[in-house]
Amino acid sequence: MKVFVIGIGLIGGSMVLDIKDLYPHATIYGIDTNEKHLDQAIELGVIDEMATFTDLIHADFVIVSVPVDVALTVVPQVLESIGDQTIVFEVGSTKLPICEAIANHAKRRNFIATHPIAGTEFSGPSAAIKGLFQGKTNIICEVEKTTFKLQERALALFQEMGMRIRYMDPKSHDKHIAYVSHLSHISAFMLGKTVIDKEKHEQDIFDMAGSGFESTVRLAKSSPAMWTPIFKQNRKQVVKTLNEYILNLSKFKELLENEDYEAIYNEMESVNKIKEILNGMNVKK
Amino acid sequence: MKVFVIGIGLIGGSMVLDIKDLYPHATIYGIDTNEKHLDQAIELGVIDEMATFTDLIHADFVIVSVPVDVALTVVPQVLESIGDQTIVFEVGSTKLPICEAIANHAKRRNFIATHPIAGTEFSGPSAAIKGLFQGKTNIICEVEKTTFKLQERALALFQEMGMRIRYMDPKSHDKHIAYVSHLSHISAFMLGKTVIDKEKHEQDIFDMAGSGFESTVRLAKSSPAMWTPIFKQNRKQVVKTLNEYILNLSKFKELLENEDYEAIYNEMESVNKIKEILNGMNVKK
Repeated sequence: MKVFVIGIGLIGGSMVLDIKDLYPHATIYGIDTNEKHLDQAIELGVIDEMATFTDLIHADFVIVSVPVDVALTVVPQVLESIGDQTIVFEVGSTKLPICEAIANHAKRRNFIATHPIAGTEFSGPSAAIKGLFQGKTNIICEVEKTTFKLQERALALFQEMGMRIRYMDPKSHDKHIAYVSHLSHISAFMLGKTVIDKEKHEQDIFDMAGSGFESTVRLAKSSPAMWTPIFKQNRKQVVKTLNEYILNLSKFKELLENEDYEAIYNEMESVNKIKEILNGMNVKK
Repeated sequence: MKVFVIGIGLIGGSMVLDIKDLYPHATIYGIDTNEKHLDQAIELGVIDEMATFTDLIHADFVIVSVPVDVALTVVPQVLESIGDQTIVFEVGSTKLPICEAIANHAKRRNFIATHPIAGTEFSGPSAAIKGLFQGKTNIICEVEKTTFKLQERALALFQEMGMRIRYMDPKSHDKHIAYVSHLSHISAFMLGKTVIDKEKHEQDIFDMAGSGFESTVRLAKSSPAMWTPIFKQNRKQVVKTLNEYILNLSKFKELLENEDYEAIYNEMESVNKIKEILNGMNVKK
């Protein structure tokens, strides 16, 4: 089995680590514009060999795991280069733009649009970890547009990695993911900014930070190179979620200004049910 | 050694678990208005016996770990009831109101105002865990107002629990903690609200939530009974941090509306240094 990974970071790297574990005889080829990442990926055993686009003709699987803006150019190029039985999937956090970009491509049926919801705040080949996808959700968009036999092979692989499969149209995916992923990132980045700005004038604030702050701000460690194009591609939805979030924060602030503590209590109590929701998430895992 | 804990929850319960571990011959007495919590605390081995305020005359240590509004009434009552060598400390998340409330109390010198920064999102006796304070920061306010010998005994105990001690005036404590703790809680609560409100109309959003969302929203599981009086007591500071946070979110939204992706990239990159800050936090632990 020949597996190619284009963009060797957290998601692509972790996928090929799992594949190598499942199929020890598979050869993992890496393509990356960042030479340091290529060297590092070989050194870490994430890939076996470097490769180029002309090698893709022999590929069984091609994983495209590059920033979502780059994917719009890379995926069509990949589709030009592959063989008839090659399966290509792209794993970015937006799905509508890529689905639109290759909608009329001659090799559309070799492509599967996926979003394995399994990020961490780290990036690059050193962020790749085995077993990352165990119990995680993989959203697949427009599954009907992929050749049935290739679809089947890809699904088998995702399931072997331990992923739960959910089907969704790309528009709904992008709308919903804005709430549970894109908004969380902005919320964390701006929380980090608010506290860092304050720390400039007031020393030692971070000395007082506990695990609660750490948890809430964790995503502010994420890569701007990865996230800027995500926000760009999903701009309208992200702005909408931001409007709703800012409105809720402003209302809470108003309750506090008006000293309406009963309403504040009720607001928090009604959100407490997030416990059961998150527990549900963990049960599914 | 006789140790009393008034309000047997996460912080008080965890403290007496550590004390019992350090001093196996200590007797732990519990006082709580919630009878179920008392029974549960005995069953779980968090306390040895139930007690009343009249027993406090024999206490070596009294830990007051009740909601911060209740503390304003309970601490003076406790100080009325203790012996000359009893040390009383209160562990809430605001420090100015309690310091003001007992400023002129005849037993002020038996009191230490502390804030062990070691919460989790859970509450009640079942939330108590051994070793919670290992490597955590304990802020002590107005240390000079406590009798030196009692101060010394309390500090020794905190250090035996593994805590790092920081001294701060209560006003600065309340101002700074608004940024690294109180704001994080509101940010998480309102993020949870925004997504729950959306989920009412759009099924299956939570099916798409990953560990990033879980981390960012974790504090929204916190107890409204504990947090409402904290926000009340620290209202002015919390409103200030909320204004700054909302302003930062609004500016980010504006950059997105204006499609200024370079500025968005730079914003995120400048916040990325939170990595080193959080790593610093972990090194200290």
